Amino acid sequence: MQYQFADRMTCAPPSFLGRLFAVSSNPDIISFAGGLPNSAFIDTQGISTAASRVFEEEGSVALQYSTTDGYLPLREFISDRYSRRLGLSIPPDQIQIVNGSQQCLDLVAKIFLNTHDHVAMERPGYLGAIEAFSFYEPVFRDVALGPEGPDLAEFETVIRDFRPKFFYGIPNSQNPSGQTYSGETRKAVAEILKSTDTIFYEDDAFGELFFDGKPRQPVAGLIPDQCILSGSFSKIIAPGMRIGWVCAPPEILARFNCAKQAADLHSNFLCQKILARYLESHDLDSHIRTISEAYGKNCRLMCDLLDDLFPAGMSHTTPIGGMFMLATLPEGLDSMKLFEAGIKGGVAVLPGTPFYVTGGGQSTIRLNFSSMDEARIFEGMERLAKVVRSLL
Amino acid sequence: MQYQFADRMTCAPPSFLGRLFAVSSNPDIISFAGGLPNSAFIDTQGISTAASRVFEEEGSVALQYSTTDGYLPLREFISDRYSRRLGLSIPPDQIQIVNGSQQCLDLVAKIFLNTHDHVAMERPGYLGAIEAFSFYEPVFRDVALGPEGPDLAEFETVIRDFRPKFFYGIPNSQNPSGQTYSGETRKAVAEILKSTDTIFYEDDAFGELFFDGKPRQPVAGLIPDQCILSGSFSKIIAPGMRIGWVCAPPEILARFNCAKQAADLHSNFLCQKILARYLESHDLDSHIRTISEAYGKNCRLMCDLLDDLFPAGMSHTTPIGGMFMLATLPEGLDSMKLFEAGIKGGVAVLPGTPFYVTGGGQSTIRLNFSSMDEARIFEGMERLAKVVRSLL
Repeated sequence: MQYQFADRMTCAPPSFLGRLFAVSSNPDIISFAGGLPNSAFIDTQGISTAASRVFEEEGSVALQYSTTDGYLPLREFISDRYSRRLGLSIPPDQIQIVNGSQQCLDLVAKIFLNTHDHVAMERPGYLGAIEAFSFYEPVFRDVALGPEGPDLAEFETVIRDFRPKFFYGIPNSQNPSGQTYSGETRKAVAEILKSTDTIFYEDDAFGELFFDGKPRQPVAGLIPDQCILSGSFSKIIAPGMRIGWVCAPPEILARFNCAKQAADLHSNFLCQKILARYLESHDLDSHIRTISEAYGKNCRLMCDLLDDLFPAGMSHTTPIGGMFMLATLPEGLDSMKLFEAGIKGGVAVLPGTPFYVTGGGQSTIRLNFSSMDEARIFEGMERLAKVVRSLL
Repeated sequence: MQYQFADRMTCAPPSFLGRLFAVSSNPDIISFAGGLPNSAFIDTQGISTAASRVFEEEGSVALQYSTTDGYLPLREFISDRYSRRLGLSIPPDQIQIVNGSQQCLDLVAKIFLNTHDHVAMERPGYLGAIEAFSFYEPVFRDVALGPEGPDLAEFETVIRDFRPKFFYGIPNSQNPSGQTYSGETRKAVAEILKSTDTIFYEDDAFGELFFDGKPRQPVAGLIPDQCILSGSFSKIIAPGMRIGWVCAPPEILARFNCAKQAADLHSNFLCQKILARYLESHDLDSHIRTISEAYGKNCRLMCDLLDDLFPAGMSHTTPIGGMFMLATLPEGLDSMKLFEAGIKGGVAVLPGTPFYVTGGGQSTIRLNFSSMDEARIFEGMERLAKVVRSLL
């Protein structure tokens, strides 16, 4: 017999995320290619205690089927935190629990995209989003992302000329670039979108991880009826539980809920309960401060080493939060070549090309600074500098 | 602004599963409408102990990101069990962990179905499958399901005339009918499919729950290269962890893996670890024997009460396993009317119509016999008989 796959299966780009995990598991290679939060900041003991209490007090409920929208006390926690941190009023019934924000990417695309619809995003843009959206066979449009956010002239042109169903962006410490939109850019983006039918899909996976601890106002606060806002516990508590969330206007969330139910009924209920119990009895702000300060130190070290150890022509973004930065290689150096040579030299970087959905990015690499300590960053950067030098 | 949803969002049928949960949570109503395994058979203590050991010995690994295919020891357990129980040789690398078998429905449809492709299933067919497939806008074809399995003449015609991408079936204790394919039907189905490009998608959520404890041979054993076989821990361990799996030939599984990664990266790793640890140290066979025997007693009681308490013209299937049976109402009695009157009479049944994807089924109801004890089944059936009588 001949397997007859759907047309969409030919348009999915090759999977780089899987390849990352393979490289990351080799202990001889210092990998800046992955995207893991630092395991040292996962409060195993605290989560274990919360789990014990859930099993003791409501184990058989936590292990049964539950509702698609997600555990109410967890949604209440998220709602309260938005109100307290950002002054956003998002009631729990406008919040839906998902399997990490990756699932949100799939389901938003599912409810909005017809084949050949336009979808817009940042250039470079998040690889996981490109992969998820690709299954719905859209036409991608991208807008250059700089230190202040998307190029506004290009943004306006793309929105006006192509009327994308949504613009997908990560205004806070973007993956892969580490760039953060300025307050002015947020207002301008909202203003441009206001008179259109294009949704702003605001992925806020990193908004809690500003090194200075100060929150930035989400675009969702400016045009709430026109925004889908997603968040995740993966970077601030633990990724292995796969708990994220989405906030959306009721009309959108009703469709999202229907799609989520068909996709997997509901997210893991046991972990929703454990997480809610954990958050009840722990100081999340202090935990996040610890993580952010450590990532900030790592980031500054990496920037300094990129400036000091590398040959001229190497440049990089200067993140103020998150887990990633983007470096641009000296002229003539290709990132795929650097990737291959790096593996032999005991250091892994992620070539930037898969983040450029309309092509380009050959001279860029994404560097992760969250997953290891300063000594290992130092050692890895020395290895990388040596490899870069050898290739020039 | 005007929300511009994808065309697929108009073709999704109204969500009945959500409505079920609402009815099920009212303690004054005895609900035969849900699909929950009996909470009494969830080994909260055992799972709690397994969880403690995971947290103690490998907590920070279990709480990190993991690979898309799923935790290898868990896949090895599934592989071993297939070999031991059914003589099937399915290596772990042909098994992928999913968020309950519901996710498998979504992803199989995603990798196979173009808009307007044909997909075939049983009549009546599983509602969750209809909901999941509908998002890919296929043309549904169905084949009457009887006490021996699908009507073979109709099956052959549908496969030959419409060349569906796949036939979705539940050969063991089907949901909603409780019917089980005979051994002869399994062979005939495999024989008919052999010369075609139609996949047999074998959903085996209930194959462990035969009241006599004897396994039935899966169709996947007859035409392994042409089958996708899914299973779940929801009915035999606990649904709240959302852990199921799919087995497929390598060429199919590679696509499935790609779709799963884009959908949510990987399933909850913590629960995969807990489950694997639990299975290491518990006698699953003995646990399943306890569940199956209890469900068998419930089922026989329900059949007896349907025969004894109800007016003439009421008929029902006679399951040999699983959690559901289908009853046919006396002539002239509509199941939606019975549903509404039942709620007032303190008993909920599920109208059969949403299980008939091409229409029909108005005189049928699905009855669940797994979620409660015999006293409550007795009380509920008495209430239901009274309501039926009042409507005639």
